[in-house]
Amino acid sequence: MRFDHVGVAARDAADLAALFADLLEARIAHEETFDGMRVVFLELDDGGFFELLEPAAEGTIREYLDREGPGIHHVALATDDLPAALERARDLGVDLVDDTPRPGAWGHEVAFLHPRSTGGVLVEFVGSGE
Amino acid sequence: MRFDHVGVAARDAADLAALFADLLEARIAHEETFDGMRVVFLELDDGGFFELLEPAAEGTIREYLDREGPGIHHVALATDDLPAALERARDLGVDLVDDTPRPGAWGHEVAFLHPRSTGGVLVEFVGSGE
Repeated sequence: MRFDHVGVAARDAADLAALFADLLEARIAHEETFDGMRVVFLELDDGGFFELLEPAAEGTIREYLDREGPGIHHVALATDDLPAALERARDLGVDLVDDTPRPGAWGHEVAFLHPRSTGGVLVEFVGSGE
Repeated sequence: MRFDHVGVAARDAADLAALFADLLEARIAHEETFDGMRVVFLELDDGGFFELLEPAAEGTIREYLDREGPGIHHVALATDDLPAALERARDLGVDLVDDTPRPGAWGHEVAFLHPRSTGGVLVEFVGSGE
């Protein structure tokens, strides 16, 4: 497993992307509207990403911003074998948000684990084998 | 700049480290008590780390846990030139928690940026040039 990205709930993803691009010497690698969110991926030198998430409709990110305010929302780990990673999580008694991989932003296969099982950390697994 | 670690505020760092070691196929790379915290570093395959922070005394992590509960606390980026990174942050109008590098966990030189300037994200810079 390796760091894929840190997900950030943002009130204005374009604005934060511009700051992070300068501050962290990152480049905007991808932008899309996905699942009611404006999503901007910023790439760091090492190939890791920030995923900035701005609500474009009602949904979990708008609810998160209303409840928690802007900031780090989740951490995503890339794995070459997403089904095996989910099976391991299940065997360890970790509650899954997604029982099976589902389509995520940027065409990835993803699955989230429930933070109540993982010390309050919202963990996303991203398949990298496709 | 590259991902160095994701910092996590934990009620029981050893317990969470054991879970993450299995769940994320990570290894415990370093443990210490530093600045009133029990600190455990878990290393991923790509050389990135989770830094688990458990309060061992009164201080910011205990206050954070009382206020926010356990979960992701900060994200740390490694840079070969920490003074230049701080200068760039200052030029961009970002508020600094640490005006100059200070000793952090595991013998690193670190400096934190204030989350009010960075979309609610607590960013730590870690010097890697030493």
